[in-house]
Amino acid sequence: MRGADDDRARFVVVGHAGRDLVLEVGGLPEAGGSTEVRRRIERLGGKGASIAVGLRQLAPEAEVVLVAALGDDDAGARAVEEARALGVGTARLARRGTTALLVDVVDDGERRLLEDVTDASLVTVADVEVAAGDIRAADLLVLQLQQPVGALLAAARIAADAGVPVLLDGAVEGDARDALVGMAAAVRADAAEAELLLGRPIESRLDAEAAAASLLERGPRLVALAAEDGDVVAWHGGARWFPHGDAPVVDPTGAGDAFVAGIAVGLVRGDALEEVGGLGAAAATAAVQRLGGHPELAGVEPERGERAARPQGGER
Amino acid sequence: MRGADDDRARFVVVGHAGRDLVLEVGGLPEAGGSTEVRRRIERLGGKGASIAVGLRQLAPEAEVVLVAALGDDDAGARAVEEARALGVGTARLARRGTTALLVDVVDDGERRLLEDVTDASLVTVADVEVAAGDIRAADLLVLQLQQPVGALLAAARIAADAGVPVLLDGAVEGDARDALVGMAAAVRADAAEAELLLGRPIESRLDAEAAAASLLERGPRLVALAAEDGDVVAWHGGARWFPHGDAPVVDPTGAGDAFVAGIAVGLVRGDALEEVGGLGAAAATAAVQRLGGHPELAGVEPERGERAARPQGGER
Repeated sequence: MRGADDDRARFVVVGHAGRDLVLEVGGLPEAGGSTEVRRRIERLGGKGASIAVGLRQLAPEAEVVLVAALGDDDAGARAVEEARALGVGTARLARRGTTALLVDVVDDGERRLLEDVTDASLVTVADVEVAAGDIRAADLLVLQLQQPVGALLAAARIAADAGVPVLLDGAVEGDARDALVGMAAAVRADAAEAELLLGRPIESRLDAEAAAASLLERGPRLVALAAEDGDVVAWHGGARWFPHGDAPVVDPTGAGDAFVAGIAVGLVRGDALEEVGGLGAAAATAAVQRLGGHPELAGVEPERGERAARPQGGER
Repeated sequence: MRGADDDRARFVVVGHAGRDLVLEVGGLPEAGGSTEVRRRIERLGGKGASIAVGLRQLAPEAEVVLVAALGDDDAGARAVEEARALGVGTARLARRGTTALLVDVVDDGERRLLEDVTDASLVTVADVEVAAGDIRAADLLVLQLQQPVGALLAAARIAADAGVPVLLDGAVEGDARDALVGMAAAVRADAAEAELLLGRPIESRLDAEAAAASLLERGPRLVALAAEDGDVVAWHGGARWFPHGDAPVVDPTGAGDAFVAGIAVGLVRGDALEEVGGLGAAAATAAVQRLGGHPELAGVEPERGERAARPQGGER
């Protein structure tokens, strides 16, 4: 937990980092054909990096340490420089192999991802152990779950032993799932991930609310789940529904990462749990209105949301 | 023409250069979905650069000067280094703006190109004027026609005034078309480009042979045109048909560039025109069996081809 000599909020994010290449096109070419790229953005990417950047934007005073692996190449060097320039702590960024490349082809607000997630870009147990001191000193550990289970469990255990709350983003399958959810203070998942966590499809708002109630019974004090047309945020004794707004979606990439950053900041600030979800929803709304998944979240105000249709688990 | 003190063949290529990003995937994702990249190649690209590299591979003793424009950025610096390492003369490479990016998504032997051809990457009249001395000293000028017409005409006129033969690759429309074809020693075009040159569709082998005969009447002494299933190469008094082989196509990118390099080398070496086409066809065949459009052409032997079905223009 934070030291007496420094009252800045401290976040550690364990997750993926790489290079994003965003290509905006006006329609995909047929096989054998070609199309013009209207806009091209190249920059630091990966869900871990995106969450870390969002945290710094929403909480400019906070210390944010990113635990991730970049390549021992030019692209990796540029990504480290960019993370530093955005205020993200880079001391726990491993450097090895080839930097991952995430190509995001955006066509009329819909995206297709072509992902070259190199083996070297996955976080290892050793990467986590190097960051153990940072995790123990954190106010919140964010675990982006698209990483090897061994590294995730190692990080969660270090946090649990030190009393540091853990926020999970995404899903894993198998035994690790129950262990991680059991150690989590908060869980955020999109519809496909929630299906993995619960073993049943999440289609409607009512499905999401029922799923959130069921996850709350496993230990977390906050659960945020996405359905097709909005997000439910539930806690013991209450829940709110944040419908997706009518604003046009430029690029859905990064909405989930921004949502995670929002609830992470709200939790550490000690906001009412109702407000925590509102900040996540507002950050996600801001993210989808920009091309390329990098948020611009400074100054975002919490959304209000609606009372959930279904009662959630009892007060704790 | 080549100086008495140096009997190396000299080629100048005016065309496009940039960065190629080749992504091999197993099926394209649906909107909202993602797919894994199986193989990724990043390197020097663009049709001008590809032709220049092919020339050096087919004629390792030759001097090849590339007239093109790369960005004043990291990608441009890497592209210049790569061209130099491949033996291409880089003294006439302009550096300005942002390097073009050509993304080649290859799925089961079919490609889709997403092209960010930056304005800065197009060759200007000034770029050509800087290279005037190289053009005058060349044995052959290769003009890749996907460039501004003013620069193409300027280069063709410098060559014509110095008695340097010109090989055109591709097509342009309007007045410049007749001027360029009239100055050309040889013309190479794919089916779509031949349609632009002639104003009628090229579908069958017979269409291509008829189109080649018609272009020969406008001045060139060699015309090579692609149809769907092969290439026709015609000269005054003869023609051959080079059917596409049965070898599986890994990536069709670069086949035309390799074809151009083959006929350029054959023409400068003074091969029989029948052999010239065979070297082009063999180079194209080699190119389609590699991912990413960079040829590996050293040691390619001319294909034999078949007698054309249709008699060509009279002997000259």
